[in-house]
Amino acid sequence: MVALLTDFGHHDPYVGVMKARILAACPQARLVDLTHQIPPQDIRRASFHLEQSVPYFPKNTIFLAVVDPGVGSSRRALVVETESASFVIPDNGILTRVLPLCGDIQRIVELPQPESASSTFHGRDIFAPAAGRLAAGEPATNLGEPTQGLVELDFPPAKRDHLSLEVSVLSIDHFGNVVLDLPRKNGWDGLSAQVRFRGETLPFVKTYSEVALGQSLLIWNSENYLELARRNGRADTEWSLTQGERLRFERISTEQG
Amino acid sequence: MVALLTDFGHHDPYVGVMKARILAACPQARLVDLTHQIPPQDIRRASFHLEQSVPYFPKNTIFLAVVDPGVGSSRRALVVETESASFVIPDNGILTRVLPLCGDIQRIVELPQPESASSTFHGRDIFAPAAGRLAAGEPATNLGEPTQGLVELDFPPAKRDHLSLEVSVLSIDHFGNVVLDLPRKNGWDGLSAQVRFRGETLPFVKTYSEVALGQSLLIWNSENYLELARRNGRADTEWSLTQGERLRFERISTEQG
Amino acid sequence: MVALLTDFGHHDPYVGVMKARILAACPQARLVDLTHQIPPQDIRRASFHLEQSVPYFPKNTIFLAVVDPGVGSSRRALVVETESASFVIPDNGILTRVLPLCGDIQRIVELPQPESASSTFHGRDIFAPAAGRLAAGEPATNLGEPTQGLVELDFPPAKRDHLSLEVSVLSIDHFGNVVLDLPRKNGWDGLSAQVRFRGETLPFVKTYSEVALGQSLLIWNSENYLELARRNGRADTEWSLTQGERLRFERISTEQG
Repeated sequence: MVALLTDFGHHDPYVGVMKARILAACPQARLVDLTHQIPPQDIRRASFHLEQSVPYFPKNTIFLAVVDPGVGSSRRALVVETESASFVIPDNGILTRVLPLCGDIQRIVELPQPESASSTFHGRDIFAPAAGRLAAGEPATNLGEPTQGLVELDFPPAKRDHLSLEVSVLSIDHFGNVVLDLPRKNGWDGLSAQVRFRGETLPFVKTYSEVALGQSLLIWNSENYLELARRNGRADTEWSLTQGERLRFERISTEQG
Repeated sequence: MVALLTDFGHHDPYVGVMKARILAACPQARLVDLTHQIPPQDIRRASFHLEQSVPYFPKNTIFLAVVDPGVGSSRRALVVETESASFVIPDNGILTRVLPLCGDIQRIVELPQPESASSTFHGRDIFAPAAGRLAAGEPATNLGEPTQGLVELDFPPAKRDHLSLEVSVLSIDHFGNVVLDLPRKNGWDGLSAQVRFRGETLPFVKTYSEVALGQSLLIWNSENYLELARRNGRADTEWSLTQGERLRFERISTEQG
Repeated sequence: MVALLTDFGHHDPYVGVMKARILAACPQARLVDLTHQIPPQDIRRASFHLEQSVPYFPKNTIFLAVVDPGVGSSRRALVVETESASFVIPDNGILTRVLPLCGDIQRIVELPQPESASSTFHGRDIFAPAAGRLAAGEPATNLGEPTQGLVELDFPPAKRDHLSLEVSVLSIDHFGNVVLDLPRKNGWDGLSAQVRFRGETLPFVKTYSEVALGQSLLIWNSENYLELARRNGRADTEWSLTQGERLRFERISTEQG
């Protein structure tokens, strides 16, 4: 199985052409689209979406993830094999958030970038053919030279203390739900039935349906991240929030709450 | 075969993750996307799109239809088996328009909602795994307890008399064609070569190409509903129409017409 | 394998219904989407996207390409078989740009348009069933009567002389890259390290990464067309360009450059 994630959108046949190259190398490959609507060049968003997706795929799925602002430069093209999955990627940090979920790295191979490759569409000319050959059962060591090390992205961590939480907007989804970069396992001891945000009081709930239609709320979402949502509405426009923005939440003392 | 319809859009990997869960349960499943761009929480639109699609699929196709404003509430999660197709759905009326096309209901099973399921993404945690198990050949009775009854939506019927037709906008498609909730088999005896709408005269035609480019028209569309269209243009913006709106058409007497 | 290209978008289940009809005729068909977001009725764009895609698909792939402003009129519905690929299309010029890449035309068959077909959705009623039967191995001659001749579109050629290049915008892609209708093999002798455009000087480069972020540039793109791009930005909005527009570039003499 090959799962695809790109920022190529659906207006052009770029994704279809990549699939043609995979299927030319491996006619029986199963192809699954994760998303092709990563905002152009947004490696951070791509890295989060891989984190959201990879754990649900069968072991040994090949992830072809091409968000590649450095195409044509000297950035490396890699195959990264881990205990649970393989990745075919430009070396720009796109695996930063997902690698901790994948067990040990077993092998990193650098794909050659032949003269005949275009300088602008390595998805078609380098990455998809490599994914196809892996899907057909060829060992990664056939595809290039072993190498080491991976570029990593920096995600500013949440700052928590007894009184407040400062946290980055990690992603905004199709429904306008605002995913915050605080995993449930890290928690925040200021989270009680209500939390203060921009002078207003938000309920912290277990399901959307605990609040009225149009009401904003905080919730641990389906990926166990803290999420600012609005029941049957868009929290992003309600609060004018954008990806990467730093938000501050304040504890409401139990005396007040 | 499993056909998918959701309001999840294509910006996030939600649909890809659902497919991963189906394929984990049934690696040989054929997956076909109906649409994932139902306007968020628009069950009525979803119900119409199922009506448009289901008759063209092979018998016994499994339809996984997740438009689920009540996720996390006490609304039931169901498998509905009919003579011609199976449905995996939240019980919110989403089958209202399609069930009359599917023969008798043979079985309704309520899927358990385990503690381990998230409260916000039952598509991944409940519905997709159930669809995968059905696709793999497991009987629905394995998946939950038999139950009865289905929530139904109310679609206000067209009002017709000798002089006028009052009818709801059922859907607006990608091309701006405005589908009206009047099936051809019900008809309207005021439909002749021309019809009055908002003070203007619309031709009623058999094919778009009978009128000039940019001209508005009425037609029985490919699903045999009355449609207000504009040749090679958008009728919705031309007439400022929105889904659910109630429209009034008037007969033109043959003396006048 | 069947590759699909339409202007149907993803909001409606039209594409899913076409796939249902293909799979009903040929359950084992491999389906690959090229794009369904051709601007409505834009045959020229469709023709270019076929040119971009077809060479990367395995020999004998069936291309189902439905951009069909003349649906319901007397335009013909055709199967066109060439040395390298088969096409199921409305006869409106959609193959103009791709046929030169496909070797000799071996057969053209006109599909009947039965009374039972709708007048507005031949994708579902005529084209998809024909593609399914071809995919299942039926010879084209079973599907209709042999015919000859194809409608062709006119693409105004580039005008080049020693001092200037006048060329049409062929397509604008998802990233805002502006593809110009000048193939690399035709070239322009005025292309040197810099070119004048609208009073500004554009670098002509081999890879995007040769220029700073946000800088506009000219490049031979991955399909070997001249492209006006902007590194990690949109050239179309930067220069207010639209498809079909005629652009003028001027040589910078080596004395000046």
